[in-house]
Amino acid sequence: MPKDLDFYFDVGSPASYLAWTQVPRLARETGATVHYRPMLLGGVFQATGNHSPMEVPLKSRWMKDDLGRFARRYGVEYRHNPHFPINTLMLMRAAMGLQMHEPQRLVPYGDAVYRAIWVDARNMNDPAEVGAVLSQAGFDPGALLALTQDPEVKDQLKSATQAAVARGVFGAPTFFVGGQMFWGQDRLDFVKEALQ
Amino acid sequence: MPKDLDFYFDVGSPASYLAWTQVPRLARETGATVHYRPMLLGGVFQATGNHSPMEVPLKSRWMKDDLGRFARRYGVEYRHNPHFPINTLMLMRAAMGLQMHEPQRLVPYGDAVYRAIWVDARNMNDPAEVGAVLSQAGFDPGALLALTQDPEVKDQLKSATQAAVARGVFGAPTFFVGGQMFWGQDRLDFVKEALQ
Repeated sequence: MPKDLDFYFDVGSPASYLAWTQVPRLARETGATVHYRPMLLGGVFQATGNHSPMEVPLKSRWMKDDLGRFARRYGVEYRHNPHFPINTLMLMRAAMGLQMHEPQRLVPYGDAVYRAIWVDARNMNDPAEVGAVLSQAGFDPGALLALTQDPEVKDQLKSATQAAVARGVFGAPTFFVGGQMFWGQDRLDFVKEALQ
Repeated sequence: MPKDLDFYFDVGSPASYLAWTQVPRLARETGATVHYRPMLLGGVFQATGNHSPMEVPLKSRWMKDDLGRFARRYGVEYRHNPHFPINTLMLMRAAMGLQMHEPQRLVPYGDAVYRAIWVDARNMNDPAEVGAVLSQAGFDPGALLALTQDPEVKDQLKSATQAAVARGVFGAPTFFVGGQMFWGQDRLDFVKEALQ
């Protein structure tokens, strides 16, 4: 029986970054096919009444420690981004545009953007920084910028975000295995059990 | 070197209930001494700007599944309480009063109240139900009610809650091992690592 894993993410979410680093291994270990689902987390928060955990100062402080502990457990690099929160509208439109037009480039794009934000602590609110990061990763920043202005891409990100909420998504990362939903990079062990 | 585990809890929190069922095993496995720290979660939310996850309908729906999955993993009973949220002011004052005057009875009291709320789905917003639960567990409801009206007990719960927030607590359950803070029953594996 083919096993499918839906992975909803936004590049502005540090927990989604940690999940992003672990999903390829999870797919290898379980034989699952990963379906990457770009969405706009800000839109999810607006639609569901949820808020970023970073809005509660004591929770934000704790989360930095917690994400660091998980990063060490996973053996991946992680650094808190001092420019957080990042407005990810353009970055997620580009992700959606790539998925629509050059789907094989979505994962390399995500790798580059996640690393820029959550390892190299780059200021991805600054278009010049975004351009530099993307050029260095082998993308044409002008072509990606054009994608972000394409009405079909804009609409697709909106409707994908609405569809995620309709399915029960209220935060990121979120996973689905069949009808079971799992929220959080800290639920990857349950995701793995569901895939086995 | 003696190892100490501070465990901050409120009986109205289902995640605190799951932690409550696991803490004795954790203490046995690590040789740690558990310091039970009653606090008023509503007071913590008010002081920190945090909110109950149950206030976001999609999150609340997911949490019921998630708590059920953890309960199965732990091998403990868990049922969502239809009378949730429970106003725990009197229940936590009684917990604090017991800790001040008959500390050896705090854990049996917690066992009885947690089971009533999170296994038997009793309506602990109803004083008559509370009285029945406590009588059955061998407590004198009148004596506990008197404790909840004792100014020293009231003050102690207030100051313990303030002290928790001052230490960084924003939700329940919360654990401290030395200077390290861990939030959530889903962080018990990290708590165990810190104790080893």
